[in-house]
Amino acid sequence: MSKFKLFALNGNLPLAEKISQEVGVELSSASVKHFADGEIQIDINESVRGADVFVIQPVSDPVNENFMELMIMVDALRRASAHAIHVVVPYYGYARADRKARSREPITAKLIANMLEMDGIDRIIAVDLHADQLQGFFDIPVDHLQAMPLLAQYLKSQKIGDNLVVVAPDHSGTKHARQLAELLGAPIAIIDKRPGDDNVGVIGDVAGKHAIIIDDMIDTGRRVEDSVTALRAEGALDIYAVATHGVLSAGASERLAAQNLKQIVLTDTIDIPQEDQLDNMVILSVGPMLGQAMQLISSNQSIHPLFEPRD
Amino acid sequence: MSKFKLFALNGNLPLAEKISQEVGVELSSASVKHFADGEIQIDINESVRGADVFVIQPVSDPVNENFMELMIMVDALRRASAHAIHVVVPYYGYARADRKARSREPITAKLIANMLEMDGIDRIIAVDLHADQLQGFFDIPVDHLQAMPLLAQYLKSQKIGDNLVVVAPDHSGTKHARQLAELLGAPIAIIDKRPGDDNVGVIGDVAGKHAIIIDDMIDTGRRVEDSVTALRAEGALDIYAVATHGVLSAGASERLAAQNLKQIVLTDTIDIPQEDQLDNMVILSVGPMLGQAMQLISSNQSIHPLFEPRD
Amino acid sequence: MSKFKLFALNGNLPLAEKISQEVGVELSSASVKHFADGEIQIDINESVRGADVFVIQPVSDPVNENFMELMIMVDALRRASAHAIHVVVPYYGYARADRKARSREPITAKLIANMLEMDGIDRIIAVDLHADQLQGFFDIPVDHLQAMPLLAQYLKSQKIGDNLVVVAPDHSGTKHARQLAELLGAPIAIIDKRPGDDNVGVIGDVAGKHAIIIDDMIDTGRRVEDSVTALRAEGALDIYAVATHGVLSAGASERLAAQNLKQIVLTDTIDIPQEDQLDNMVILSVGPMLGQAMQLISSNQSIHPLFEPRD
Amino acid sequence: MSKFKLFALNGNLPLAEKISQEVGVELSSASVKHFADGEIQIDINESVRGADVFVIQPVSDPVNENFMELMIMVDALRRASAHAIHVVVPYYGYARADRKARSREPITAKLIANMLEMDGIDRIIAVDLHADQLQGFFDIPVDHLQAMPLLAQYLKSQKIGDNLVVVAPDHSGTKHARQLAELLGAPIAIIDKRPGDDNVGVIGDVAGKHAIIIDDMIDTGRRVEDSVTALRAEGALDIYAVATHGVLSAGASERLAAQNLKQIVLTDTIDIPQEDQLDNMVILSVGPMLGQAMQLISSNQSIHPLFEPRD
Amino acid sequence: MSKFKLFALNGNLPLAEKISQEVGVELSSASVKHFADGEIQIDINESVRGADVFVIQPVSDPVNENFMELMIMVDALRRASAHAIHVVVPYYGYARADRKARSREPITAKLIANMLEMDGIDRIIAVDLHADQLQGFFDIPVDHLQAMPLLAQYLKSQKIGDNLVVVAPDHSGTKHARQLAELLGAPIAIIDKRPGDDNVGVIGDVAGKHAIIIDDMIDTGRRVEDSVTALRAEGALDIYAVATHGVLSAGASERLAAQNLKQIVLTDTIDIPQEDQLDNMVILSVGPMLGQAMQLISSNQSIHPLFEPRD
Amino acid sequence: MSKFKLFALNGNLPLAEKISQEVGVELSSASVKHFADGEIQIDINESVRGADVFVIQPVSDPVNENFMELMIMVDALRRASAHAIHVVVPYYGYARADRKARSREPITAKLIANMLEMDGIDRIIAVDLHADQLQGFFDIPVDHLQAMPLLAQYLKSQKIGDNLVVVAPDHSGTKHARQLAELLGAPIAIIDKRPGDDNVGVIGDVAGKHAIIIDDMIDTGRRVEDSVTALRAEGALDIYAVATHGVLSAGASERLAAQNLKQIVLTDTIDIPQEDQLDNMVILSVGPMLGQAMQLISSNQSIHPLFEPRD
Repeated sequence: MSKFKLFALNGNLPLAEKISQEVGVELSSASVKHFADGEIQIDINESVRGADVFVIQPVSDPVNENFMELMIMVDALRRASAHAIHVVVPYYGYARADRKARSREPITAKLIANMLEMDGIDRIIAVDLHADQLQGFFDIPVDHLQAMPLLAQYLKSQKIGDNLVVVAPDHSGTKHARQLAELLGAPIAIIDKRPGDDNVGVIGDVAGKHAIIIDDMIDTGRRVEDSVTALRAEGALDIYAVATHGVLSAGASERLAAQNLKQIVLTDTIDIPQEDQLDNMVILSVGPMLGQAMQLISSNQSIHPLFEPRD
Repeated sequence: MSKFKLFALNGNLPLAEKISQEVGVELSSASVKHFADGEIQIDINESVRGADVFVIQPVSDPVNENFMELMIMVDALRRASAHAIHVVVPYYGYARADRKARSREPITAKLIANMLEMDGIDRIIAVDLHADQLQGFFDIPVDHLQAMPLLAQYLKSQKIGDNLVVVAPDHSGTKHARQLAELLGAPIAIIDKRPGDDNVGVIGDVAGKHAIIIDDMIDTGRRVEDSVTALRAEGALDIYAVATHGVLSAGASERLAAQNLKQIVLTDTIDIPQEDQLDNMVILSVGPMLGQAMQLISSNQSIHPLFEPRD
Repeated sequence: MSKFKLFALNGNLPLAEKISQEVGVELSSASVKHFADGEIQIDINESVRGADVFVIQPVSDPVNENFMELMIMVDALRRASAHAIHVVVPYYGYARADRKARSREPITAKLIANMLEMDGIDRIIAVDLHADQLQGFFDIPVDHLQAMPLLAQYLKSQKIGDNLVVVAPDHSGTKHARQLAELLGAPIAIIDKRPGDDNVGVIGDVAGKHAIIIDDMIDTGRRVEDSVTALRAEGALDIYAVATHGVLSAGASERLAAQNLKQIVLTDTIDIPQEDQLDNMVILSVGPMLGQAMQLISSNQSIHPLFEPRD
Repeated sequence: MSKFKLFALNGNLPLAEKISQEVGVELSSASVKHFADGEIQIDINESVRGADVFVIQPVSDPVNENFMELMIMVDALRRASAHAIHVVVPYYGYARADRKARSREPITAKLIANMLEMDGIDRIIAVDLHADQLQGFFDIPVDHLQAMPLLAQYLKSQKIGDNLVVVAPDHSGTKHARQLAELLGAPIAIIDKRPGDDNVGVIGDVAGKHAIIIDDMIDTGRRVEDSVTALRAEGALDIYAVATHGVLSAGASERLAAQNLKQIVLTDTIDIPQEDQLDNMVILSVGPMLGQAMQLISSNQSIHPLFEPRD
Repeated sequence: MSKFKLFALNGNLPLAEKISQEVGVELSSASVKHFADGEIQIDINESVRGADVFVIQPVSDPVNENFMELMIMVDALRRASAHAIHVVVPYYGYARADRKARSREPITAKLIANMLEMDGIDRIIAVDLHADQLQGFFDIPVDHLQAMPLLAQYLKSQKIGDNLVVVAPDHSGTKHARQLAELLGAPIAIIDKRPGDDNVGVIGDVAGKHAIIIDDMIDTGRRVEDSVTALRAEGALDIYAVATHGVLSAGASERLAAQNLKQIVLTDTIDIPQEDQLDNMVILSVGPMLGQAMQLISSNQSIHPLFEPRD
Repeated sequence: MSKFKLFALNGNLPLAEKISQEVGVELSSASVKHFADGEIQIDINESVRGADVFVIQPVSDPVNENFMELMIMVDALRRASAHAIHVVVPYYGYARADRKARSREPITAKLIANMLEMDGIDRIIAVDLHADQLQGFFDIPVDHLQAMPLLAQYLKSQKIGDNLVVVAPDHSGTKHARQLAELLGAPIAIIDKRPGDDNVGVIGDVAGKHAIIIDDMIDTGRRVEDSVTALRAEGALDIYAVATHGVLSAGASERLAAQNLKQIVLTDTIDIPQEDQLDNMVILSVGPMLGQAMQLISSNQSIHPLFEPRD
């Protein structure tokens, strides 16, 4: 196959380093400058002519800066005659803007997809998209990896005990909770928050059980907070908050710290700054999984084995 | 504005007639022939030059025939200089193929959207898409109407009583159930079917309550059957099965008949053949809603009022 | 070059088997299900990542089902990262809808081409397109194979004698007839059917000659019937009906059986069901030609030699 | 409707004047310069913002200059905010390059269509395309006008007599000849020229008849010459050569002059220079037909009435 | 014509207000939120169905935030069935990234254009693009307005005297300087800065003259600083710095303040914050010009009169 | 890599031969015919299936013929399954039509780019585009080579002496002149021609110096003539006219001959006919540079070394 090159933009350099180590390929050299007037300039310091290029960039905070870095990088790579451009987007920003919930809303998640396709990418590699339907926002191949086996494996290793319940923090998350529950052999419960009602209920039995709240992301932490309140009211024991993406926007860290959670389990799809890391926070790396996927992809092998249970 | 013309293909002529009456515009004349060799021929019998054309066609069984009728009709309209082509798709076939659940699956719901956009339609008017994200499969305007107010209004009119529970027949339907529950002022429960497990559980309290199973469509009827079994085991009283789309594929009618349901409430987005209609089946018409939407659209008014509660 | 994979959909499995044997490559495994509600589901059972895939599917009766199978398969292959998607369409349905003969007609043959290109195919391999201009409906490469050398070779082998005439069954077919006549060293005649006139004439001399009616396809058989009537009235001897595509729609087989033809010579671009095969019907296989073409294509060699006369 | 504006490029100013008179709209002002270095510059001297613009330009000799004039004009109109751009192409150059007759040929007629569509035209109005399938080379509306009623009306007015035969000058033209023959109530014959054979035959009966050779265009005149030779050999009386497009490339005029034809009947889709006009040449104008079509189009009425027989 | 609606995003609300007053149309209501996680959400509070919408947004600092606001707004408008979407971009960010000056650079100005076109805008209205060729980065209409008449008119009103010279601050700006010089009836000079050489020369005669440095934008102010140094060294008298766009990135204001300029003349294409405004700074408004252009555009009149000299 | 094939059209066969020699690959065989009716026909005489094809064609006089040859050739190559199509355009016609200088002008340079991209080219290799921004008219890779090192190297070899000045013949060329001046270690001057003023001035000091007028092309020669007049009036000594592209349209040769220039230095991007070559004209070949670029490109190496200074 063609030359294999790996570039990291500014979104998550520590993860890029982990992927680089897994793949055994050094990160190629490019400089990304943000000028005083707000514009971004990218210089690619080595030839990419004919190369299969992987660019690693989550669309996380600062979302628009990171996204534009990615778009501009792809423009430069395409004009520089890269053979194929694979973008690795561990966290897909704007994923929740995936439908018109009200009149005259944008569908920004589709806009993001359209912009990337228009820019000439050949493939996107993503982790736990907010909705599976986002795969269909693209017409190019989407390699959609899942962190749940990684999360489940970790939770099993903690030997929490048999009296477990997996909790969906809202109605939309029921299916997701059911998937984790299967892997852990546990029942599920659903947090039943109704619009305009301050009382949050729980559907399902949580009394005297250790509860694992599972979500695809933790953003403001308010949903975790509501869930914890409801679960404690219903007599839950230890509570774990588990999610793939640690968005942790302003105030989330303090809010989570106040919940007295047993553990907060996240992955490194988003680089969590030191000041937001809590003592009870565990951060698992998706680096090895992404690195393995990229190796399989570049050698034209199925990535299906990545979804097999691992012990 | 331009001339307004209304065409119906073979998918659901009775609904087209209802819309025509609501709008106060006769159906325009076109003939659709299916030749012995399987090909479709369409003749449009009046000029559409410069006209704003609405074509009514659900993509229901026979799915591929109906879809190709629509594609060919749009090709003919575009070449015949129609000013704008609005397609009214009360039931969007292949909607469940909206993501890759396994390796190497197609995303046929997106393919359908791509084909329609490529064919040059200007707008799609749909009812209760299987997932809201399907709106994002299009880049043209999607006017997404909802039958739930219609269904809720009917259910209220039945004065079933206070001891109601709205039931999601699977994990994915929890949010949908919560919406109906809000309109009826009722709690919810979830049917908890696990892969590879014949025992179907119920999460939430249904004993001694009248249960309303709500889904977007009833296809084979097996999910209703499983839900009824589980609800009866948990002590539910009268059971209603409610859905927007009556797909009712082979055997569904017999299966539903065997469930001893209080009522089966559907709409006419799909034309339900006489032989599949049961005594306890109520079919509400979306014709007035679609007709009103088309009038608002053609006079450039917001369709938002259609979503307001009606008494 | 890349991995070479061969898939067959439901349109013509016997031909696919013949191609597979010629090429020496097993058919890859995929399942195509038609659900009770009319939708098609396709599962590809082996990785196609980076592979050069050939999909064999005539767009023959059931035309719309077969076409949608092809579209959905291509969607799945593209999303599954196939390197190149070559579709082999031995019979191109809707080919006769290649122009607007009346106001407001569709041009469905172009619509089919647009849909295939939009779906991301890299090449189409076709046999005897109804009009050569259909090649121009595509902007991707079209490898257009011709069955006429195969038909001519067979007819020569029958040693019918010198008093031959090749007959075009309608005005449009004159050029086609001239081509076969060249290969057989024979004169031509034209069936002269005028709209609204029951009497069918013959232009050219057929009395006392064996007549070979040549067409690109036999559909209802009515054109053969008219031609036979006119030829016999003019004193033709043995009559052969020859065509590449045996569409044979409802009643065609009975109609052909009643003509007392010396032979009906067809190819297997369309799979002719056992019950439509007549005693005087000869079916030649295009499998070897298609297999050779695919081998030349996959090894980047010209397919030109396939058009050379063979003895 | 919007403002209606009419522009003529250099291809056929006399026809543009005739259209302008028929429509009752002055030609708008634009200058088209060909610089000494071979480049074309176009200046549009009045605002076209929001206007419905018709541009008249046959793609006749000098083909590439005329075509580029058209492309550049459309670019200027689109950038200048024209509301709709309708191109009137009375003669569609490169129309015979509509298929690959040999390996590695271009399909230039499709390339022309692709370029025009890419440039943003909204409609093409054409006369007697070389093959009807060229309509399908476009996805925008094609208004395809036919000169045959005009030609037939003229021929009838000449009262040539009953012993007429309409002659197709090659195999491909048989259908075309049949159409004229219907309008004149005459039989047909076909010139049977075989590749590599100097003797040209005639199929059908022409002895003692006045012959009308009908073609879509007369280019070099060699096909007319061959036809005349064959017809005279078979005993035809007066011979007429009739065609829509008078391409008359180098030497054609002399060749036609030498044939002793009764009449040569052409239209003015191409402007025939004074020096190529012969005494026995009759040039009918398509101006009124094009003008009427443009009026119907601009007022959103069907152009179908133009195809009705006129007396 | 259709309804006319005017929206302003966050980039330059004061200018939007001025335009609104000129046009006599209230700004329509939309809210633009920037969430704590960095994502933007836009709510359009009134129907835009069928409306001709103008959106006012310079792509100035914060460049990427402002640009994404614009993209998301357009997505929402398109999905909400706006009839036409005109974007007014008084300052086009990334305009200087308009070519590859080194290997592997992006051409971000084209990327911006591609994204806007892909998003479905119908027109862009811009002021003094960094290079005229940026018009060609679009295929839709670009209405390119010029602030130079406004600047020249102001400078004339200052009655600076006859001993004027207009100065291009670098080699690329010579043509621009010549244009202003024509309007003022003055000679020109060019600042001759060579790479790697600290001494900056002046070509042309400036001694004893008042100098007007003219540029399309003032960004860091370094080029003004160098020019002033060179001009003073050559004996220039009063020095004016004139530009359309006041980018004034970090430190520019202090740098300009230190130059002892007679006047700094800018326009309000970019909103200059109070703290960056200096005592010798004059800010002219392009609001009236933009408002007049929008009125001409919406009534399908030529904007050419805007370029006429005004007294 | 794939097979490498080199084709030359009619624009500049001598240059194509030089490239062929540099690359060590024979020109592949294709015939390009211009028929008497003005149409072009191209026959490619060898298989290009799977090949990396380079087509050499400047868009020089006859501009439209040459451009259409290129478009038609690309259509043929694409349909013939070439793997990649690289077009080598040593002179890019219509490059000066790169912006709207007046209302309602086309931007033909962008139209040319759009047509080439639409036709499916994979890359363009160009020399000294009139404006660098033309690179951004394409979204595919543009390999933009520069003749200035070649020109500078030649001028150095002439040892003209130290009292040199490099002259921009108009305001737009100042930057270009500065680049050459850097390479030669010389100062610059600018010809200051004002619209409507017959007196042409010079900015900068030229008295007693040898002057090198540098431009990207010499077309009519009028700009050289004006420059020479002004330079001589200011006391310049020997004058050289230097440019990459020798367009030399009608009368240019005579005009140049009358200027008494020391040397006219051009390259062979355009084939200069024998009758236009003057005694004091030096024509340098870009063939070696283009050949080296093509070799680097086809072996996926950076072309950056071509821009390094050579001694």
